[in-house]
Amino acid sequence: MKTIYYTASSLDGFLADENHSLEWLLQFGELESMKDHYPRFLGKVGAVAMGASTYRWLLDHERMLEDPSRWPYAMPTWVFSHRDLPSIPGADLRFVQGDVAAVHADMVRAAAGGDVWLCGGGDLIGQFHDAGLLDEIVVTFAPVTLGKGAPFLPRRIETPALRLVGVEKHGDVYAVLTYAVDTVPRVQPTL
Amino acid sequence: MKTIYYTASSLDGFLADENHSLEWLLQFGELESMKDHYPRFLGKVGAVAMGASTYRWLLDHERMLEDPSRWPYAMPTWVFSHRDLPSIPGADLRFVQGDVAAVHADMVRAAAGGDVWLCGGGDLIGQFHDAGLLDEIVVTFAPVTLGKGAPFLPRRIETPALRLVGVEKHGDVYAVLTYAVDTVPRVQPTL
Repeated sequence: MKTIYYTASSLDGFLADENHSLEWLLQFGELESMKDHYPRFLGKVGAVAMGASTYRWLLDHERMLEDPSRWPYAMPTWVFSHRDLPSIPGADLRFVQGDVAAVHADMVRAAAGGDVWLCGGGDLIGQFHDAGLLDEIVVTFAPVTLGKGAPFLPRRIETPALRLVGVEKHGDVYAVLTYAVDTVPRVQPTL
Repeated sequence: MKTIYYTASSLDGFLADENHSLEWLLQFGELESMKDHYPRFLGKVGAVAMGASTYRWLLDHERMLEDPSRWPYAMPTWVFSHRDLPSIPGADLRFVQGDVAAVHADMVRAAAGGDVWLCGGGDLIGQFHDAGLLDEIVVTFAPVTLGKGAPFLPRRIETPALRLVGVEKHGDVYAVLTYAVDTVPRVQPTL
């Protein structure tokens, strides 16, 4: 069981442009050679966490309130938000705020041996890292630079450095880099 | 003959931290498996360009004014700067400012069939890209995030997107990604 930040990013480290748009990413569609990558990852995921902006983007972009069947995750999903957000009928959503460590313990328990997927945004992932709870980063770089936008991971992670464990090339579009995160001795979540 | 931006970057897209430091990069030393990569690239380079900050960093970090023999490039090197900068005795340095296209024509001529290496910083590379003169980006990602600093390439390059032509993994440290840059129909420099 691992806690994984699995995300796409522009080559210069942004999750979304300054208007919260992902059009720059969506222009590539679903690349044939990537089709296998995401399902292989998703199949091992037992719990999902995301920030308010990521959730809002899913709601708006996929029009999930009009058609709740579009919600893509059967596993329980925690949404970190200080605002009230609309829920989606039938989706297993848990709205939370505050300390990520306590919530992470709940997620690990719910995942029952599966991985915990941290979708983003960057600052939420930073909080998990600060708490010593991030095990792996899998970043898919799209062949685009944005110059500005929402940063991929607004933290200084230098010592210990990340450890590169894998690189993959998918067509002439995506580079997928996988890093193990070595944290300072971690506080075990109380289960 | 190509014009290549060959650089190292933090995983989140910074060339240097907010104090212009590269300590985060230098901690990795010279990785055995990377030893071949840089000389192979450098051997084909016929002309070099860099911005004032990059030049200053080399001067200060390598103490080249105390020992000019430390200057590492036999090929002619153009330094773009609006300030007066000290030269290095014996080094083939050309201090310039203004439009990159005219200077690029000089560089291509001097390179005599060799590649043109753009070292950085990011904005200077952006100016070459704006002028349709950037052919390739080779970025070596160090396994570190900085959160802020000098951006790798402060431009929006989305349409046409870059084309990923190669990925390499060097130990558990460096991921080297190579991109071809497709620009709008380019104005040929007058030779």
